Amino acid sequence: MFLAKIYVTLKPAVNDPQGITVRGGLHNLGFTGVTEVRVGKYMEVRLDTTDEADAIRQADEMSRKLLSNPVIEDYRFDLTPA
Amino acid sequence: MFLAKIYVTLKPAVNDPQGITVRGGLHNLGFTGVTEVRVGKYMEVRLDTTDEADAIRQADEMSRKLLSNPVIEDYRFDLTPA
Repeated sequence: MFLAKIYVTLKPAVNDPQGITVRGGLHNLGFTGVTEVRVGKYMEVRLDTTDEADAIRQADEMSRKLLSNPVIEDYRFDLTPA
Repeated sequence: MFLAKIYVTLKPAVNDPQGITVRGGLHNLGFTGVTEVRVGKYMEVRLDTTDEADAIRQADEMSRKLLSNPVIEDYRFDLTPA
């Protein structure tokens, strides 16, 4: 068993209205030193395989095909035995 | 300047319908070895301070007050100079 921790973030050039809204909320709460917020997704996927190379291949493929939108998002992941 | 990378996850006991839906989608795509998916949030917050202790305090406080719902979610963060 492997646990894939997958991080999906907007590409740097893509506008992030959700992040701008969160930054506004933080300013309103008094965190005036916050200059930028970017909001992404974090997913933990448990894979029933004992082959690490297979787990890497699967995590990469599912990130590309379903978990991220490659047009506007980047993804990265790390894998731990679980 | 510090960059806080903040991870917000549902507490283990909390049901995650979004994760169940993603797992179904992965199964339909042929990733039948996926046993569990948990969906969380990932945020990058840029802080205009040079004091690391202050940055830690701010990141912790904003995570608790705005970025997570402490009733159903856990958070963790790491901090890098940026």
